[in-house]
Amino acid sequence: MRIALDTMGGDHGPAPNVGGAALALATNPDLTVVLVGDRAQLEPLLAAASLPIGRVEVVHAAQVVEMKEKPGEAFRRKPDASVFRAWQLMATGQVDGLVSAGNTGAVVAGGLMSRRFLKGVHRPGIATVMPNAKGRCVIMDVGANVFPQPRHLLQYGVMGSVFARYILNIERPTLGLMNVGEEEGKGHDLAQKTFELFRASPLNDRFVGNIEGRDIHRGAVDVVVTDGFTGNVMLKLSEGVLEFVLGIVNQEVIGALQVEREQAQLAMKALIAKYHYSAVGGAPLLGVEGVCIICHGSSKDNAIASALGVAALNVRVKLNEKIVASLDALPSGDE
Amino acid sequence: MRIALDTMGGDHGPAPNVGGAALALATNPDLTVVLVGDRAQLEPLLAAASLPIGRVEVVHAAQVVEMKEKPGEAFRRKPDASVFRAWQLMATGQVDGLVSAGNTGAVVAGGLMSRRFLKGVHRPGIATVMPNAKGRCVIMDVGANVFPQPRHLLQYGVMGSVFARYILNIERPTLGLMNVGEEEGKGHDLAQKTFELFRASPLNDRFVGNIEGRDIHRGAVDVVVTDGFTGNVMLKLSEGVLEFVLGIVNQEVIGALQVEREQAQLAMKALIAKYHYSAVGGAPLLGVEGVCIICHGSSKDNAIASALGVAALNVRVKLNEKIVASLDALPSGDE
Repeated sequence: MRIALDTMGGDHGPAPNVGGAALALATNPDLTVVLVGDRAQLEPLLAAASLPIGRVEVVHAAQVVEMKEKPGEAFRRKPDASVFRAWQLMATGQVDGLVSAGNTGAVVAGGLMSRRFLKGVHRPGIATVMPNAKGRCVIMDVGANVFPQPRHLLQYGVMGSVFARYILNIERPTLGLMNVGEEEGKGHDLAQKTFELFRASPLNDRFVGNIEGRDIHRGAVDVVVTDGFTGNVMLKLSEGVLEFVLGIVNQEVIGALQVEREQAQLAMKALIAKYHYSAVGGAPLLGVEGVCIICHGSSKDNAIASALGVAALNVRVKLNEKIVASLDALPSGDE
Repeated sequence: MRIALDTMGGDHGPAPNVGGAALALATNPDLTVVLVGDRAQLEPLLAAASLPIGRVEVVHAAQVVEMKEKPGEAFRRKPDASVFRAWQLMATGQVDGLVSAGNTGAVVAGGLMSRRFLKGVHRPGIATVMPNAKGRCVIMDVGANVFPQPRHLLQYGVMGSVFARYILNIERPTLGLMNVGEEEGKGHDLAQKTFELFRASPLNDRFVGNIEGRDIHRGAVDVVVTDGFTGNVMLKLSEGVLEFVLGIVNQEVIGALQVEREQAQLAMKALIAKYHYSAVGGAPLLGVEGVCIICHGSSKDNAIASALGVAALNVRVKLNEKIVASLDALPSGDE
């Protein structure tokens, strides 16, 4: 299979993308990576990396969407930007998926503007995987759709469940709706109406109802459904709290040790490597034709490599076919 | 000064309330606590606690709002519930403030239904204090107003700033608007319109603009403005991530130590005591006549005591007078 990599996106430019491609090619024998970006910058990196012949291609793109650029404007003004070139490769069937650590809004805009949504999908959404006390869960949406309708959230529940089933290997994923309290009738209009849609849907028997912020990391459900505004805040807040708590533990606990400080520091490093976003493999934009994986802007080689691996897995398990079939099972009134 | 304590609220019944009152009375010589609740349950606890004579009173309330009860219904059906009795005591000038670890919705409903808002206040909101890398910050609103208007959020910025100034002693508090990205124009309609209101307000020179979830614990601002839905999720999510990270550190770092495990466990306990919600002293409902402090349902003695202490401090510094003066300085179009 062929995955396009937007090498110009991200905070660190093309280098971690080429490095990540090398790692992913070594562990995914069926993978070909199409590096999209400035050929003049890519070729010296490729020469130094000695990647497997025939499994790497370069597609030149003359423009770059900067991290702070407004996505809509960028889409109009920079048709030759690497991220939009990657979307074009997917739209024309030249690649099966794409990975980008660039401007998230621009990656999403590329997908929304293409209008190549899967059959039955109202609005694509971003799913993300988060560690919890029982393993891992999926949160959807974390930023593609900041003011959704209830029927969008119902579909996010469906798509998130399919992702949990086939990518995280959770047999019968349970779902919860992010809210300000567990009781029925809690929250704003969107939450109340979405709750009713889930109760009336075929997902009802796996829908535990409303959940609260503290339930996520306790592992209360496998799929957390939320609007893109709340989800985006949640994702970045979790990152911030993790960073903060590890910082104070380092200072106030590890720092107080005399004999075993070095050993504890090594264990902390292993823990960070295990729970850091870079181990997660990027966040898929679900609901579009093809596969789109969005990486953190600060991704290094290993984060890019795991995102390429997740993209390849999405293609291998034919995730989109399963999403379309699951959406098809919803009552027609919800479509 | 006199503070009413809703002794029937919370997960643990009257005992931690009586215990908390004893602690608070010992450290606040100007304080009288009015225990509101079931006299038959309170009297044996009081007899055992030997509280200072003349500084504790009991006001009987025959009903209790349960933790899972719907606030609006409870307000209609249980006029003699301890939490509503406490509000009545404040409305009739018999106490200066109230503290409750009961059903948060019912505490807020008691305040909203009283309609005794401070001059100029459109909607009261709940402020909470959160630790960050630079010390502490205020987040407002965390659940009183789940679908606010932009002018409500502007006032939350004003009230949160006054709280940061006079309760947290931050000289010139900076403000940020919770959003999905830093750039202007980000987010949903509410976020965009609120951003413009702040830019056009006298708070503009302390308004840093949009902030993201990861900025909070890094200490980017002193006051975080957000709607009650997002804020409530943030508050509980932070609690969940803290609990989760401390759990994995305990298991994967502290558990791996041979020699200094006990010492590390003690340091972890000290750290939890320092950063746990119980050290924060409850969350004030700002914008109402009098002082109202809402505690976590699972509060023990020390959490109740610190909430009583914060309530007393609010009265001492005349926080409400300062809020009214600050709101008065807003351009009339925003009121």
